Amino acid sequence: MELSAKVIAVYTAKQEDYPRSTAVPRLTLTWDGIEGERHFGRTRRADARVRYYPKGSEIANTRQVTILSEEELAEIAAAMGLAMLDATLLSGNVVLRGVSRLTRLPAGTRLQFSGGAALICDGENLPCSIPGRAIAAAFPERQRLGRMFAKSAIGRRGVTAWVEHPGEIAAGDEVLIRIAAQYLYRPESML
Amino acid sequence: MELSAKVIAVYTAKQEDYPRSTAVPRLTLTWDGIEGERHFGRTRRADARVRYYPKGSEIANTRQVTILSEEELAEIAAAMGLAMLDATLLSGNVVLRGVSRLTRLPAGTRLQFSGGAALICDGENLPCSIPGRAIAAAFPERQRLGRMFAKSAIGRRGVTAWVEHPGEIAAGDEVLIRIAAQYLYRPESML
Repeated sequence: MELSAKVIAVYTAKQEDYPRSTAVPRLTLTWDGIEGERHFGRTRRADARVRYYPKGSEIANTRQVTILSEEELAEIAAAMGLAMLDATLLSGNVVLRGVSRLTRLPAGTRLQFSGGAALICDGENLPCSIPGRAIAAAFPERQRLGRMFAKSAIGRRGVTAWVEHPGEIAAGDEVLIRIAAQYLYRPESML
Repeated sequence: MELSAKVIAVYTAKQEDYPRSTAVPRLTLTWDGIEGERHFGRTRRADARVRYYPKGSEIANTRQVTILSEEELAEIAAAMGLAMLDATLLSGNVVLRGVSRLTRLPAGTRLQFSGGAALICDGENLPCSIPGRAIAAAFPERQRLGRMFAKSAIGRRGVTAWVEHPGEIAAGDEVLIRIAAQYLYRPESML
C-alpha cells in the first residue's frame, strides 16, 4: 500500500530552545538523525516511554525525527478551541500535507522523500506534557491550554522516525509512504 | 500485550558457510549486530527486498538478527513432508519456544532477553530461495525439497530484528516480548 504526501515545512529543535522548534530551509540527515538537533544521535537515554529499561539506559535512538500532519494539527487546534496550532510549539521536524491519519502509520513504514532521504516510522509519538509548556508560554492569558494539550493530542501527535538512508528534506518535497502488507493487520487474536 | 518465550538454541552464519549456520554457546551483540556474523553491520546493501532503492544502495541494517520459532519450524517441516527441519539450514540466529505465531509479531515489538540484550522486531522475514540451496544440499536424494522451501515457509519463516540494547543471548534465556498497543490494529481502512 502506498500513500503520497507533500512536505509543508521543516524545523529543528535545538537543545537551548526546546520544546520550541524553528523553521529552517532544509534538514540534512546523516545516519544519526538531523545534525545539530536535540534528538540527534545513534543512541538515546531511555525515558518514561520505555519504562522497562532502567531510566537512563543507553538504547538505539528511534526518535531522531518527529513528523506531524497539517490535518492532525488542525484537529488538535480545534479540540483546544484554537484557530490553528503552530508546529513549532510541538517540537516537530517535518510537517506533511496529504496524510490525514499520519499518527496511525504502522511501525516499519518507509517514507521516501524526493530529495533522497528515507525514514522508517517508529509509530505514534505518544503524548507527553512538554509541548504543553511551550503552548502555555505562547498563550499566557490562557494557561489552561497547556494542560489541555496532552489529552487533545492523543492519536494526532504524529509519529517518530529514524534514518534509513541519509539525505535532505525540504519544504515542497514529495513523499512516498510505503506500507508493506506485513506491517498491517496484526490483531492480538492472531498472535 | 506481553508474551514470554525461551531461547532453545543460538547460531551464527559466517559468510564462508552461508546459507548454513552453526550452533554456538552464546551470541554477543553490539549496536551493529552479532560480531563475526554475515549480517553484522550498522548498514547493509539494499537487495531485492527493498526494491525501491537502487540495488546496492547503503541503508540502515534492520536484518542484524534472524529469529525462528520451534513451532513454526515444525510446521514448515510438516508442509515439506519432513520429520523435522534443522534451524542451521535456514541461517537463523535464535530459535525460540513458546511463540507459535512468531512470524506475525508486528514491527516495533521489543524482545528483551534475560541476559540483558534487547532486539526490535522488523517484521516477517520474507521467504527467499537461498535456504532452499542448503536444504537441497542436505537432502541430495530429494532435490525437490529445495524448491518446496520458499512456498512452505511463507508466514512461518520468523522475523528479522536489530539491536536496541547490546548484551548476550544464550540457550535457556527467558524472553519477554512486549507488543505496544500502538503496533497492533492498523487495517488499511484506518489510514
